[in-house]
Amino acid sequence: MAFIDELKFDQDGLIPAIAQDADSGEVLMVAWMNREAVEKTCAKGLAHYYSRSRKKPWLKGEESGHLQHVLEMRTDCDGDVLLIKVRQESGACHTGYRSCFFKLRTSDGGLREDGVKAFDPGKVYRKALPT
Amino acid sequence: MAFIDELKFDQDGLIPAIAQDADSGEVLMVAWMNREAVEKTCAKGLAHYYSRSRKKPWLKGEESGHLQHVLEMRTDCDGDVLLIKVRQESGACHTGYRSCFFKLRTSDGGLREDGVKAFDPGKVYRKALPT
Repeated sequence: MAFIDELKFDQDGLIPAIAQDADSGEVLMVAWMNREAVEKTCAKGLAHYYSRSRKKPWLKGEESGHLQHVLEMRTDCDGDVLLIKVRQESGACHTGYRSCFFKLRTSDGGLREDGVKAFDPGKVYRKALPT
Repeated sequence: MAFIDELKFDQDGLIPAIAQDADSGEVLMVAWMNREAVEKTCAKGLAHYYSRSRKKPWLKGEESGHLQHVLEMRTDCDGDVLLIKVRQESGACHTGYRSCFFKLRTSDGGLREDGVKAFDPGKVYRKALPT
């Protein structure tokens, strides 16, 4: 049985994908894939997601250079979520944090930023701004 | 700022929650929470999810006894996904596997089961069947 045929894409043809650091186990981000993004990810060994605004797959890191090298791909018992284990270059989050999950609930129900800064987004994304 | 006010529930009032083993880092499962399920999870320190079929929150493990003790709760940069770190009693998956993500893509694009069996679902769920 083909892995891709086990996946249940939703009514928009999408499936959520969790990217997890293959070494540390840290959950880095969650984004959407369509069938084409899954196929590209498998073919190239680099994570591709689906942009709902641009309506097409995109290579994670195509602008920032922060590629995700895919070491393993899994789905769950229902086949409706993907889990990919990756080697993340620099950081996954557009804010500069290594992981998107830097917003921690404190014991009093508040919120505190807690994460490792991997890069300066002002420098990394500056090149994309109009000059 | 309150953590719960940072969360973006979708048009159905739901947010996906990733449960991760607090010790090993293994991703165990993904399920939905509504605001009430988040509040119960925070108040009791045990993961509660939202059942879309029963239209109400449920305690994870209420039938199986396989509770999830919540040690940490995070959300991502967009506030539209929850990540909870848990101590999982026995296994998270109704199939008996420790993790729901036991379906592994093989290098030839096939699929192989790869996971740790934590319990026998025939024994655990038998009591729920009509006698």
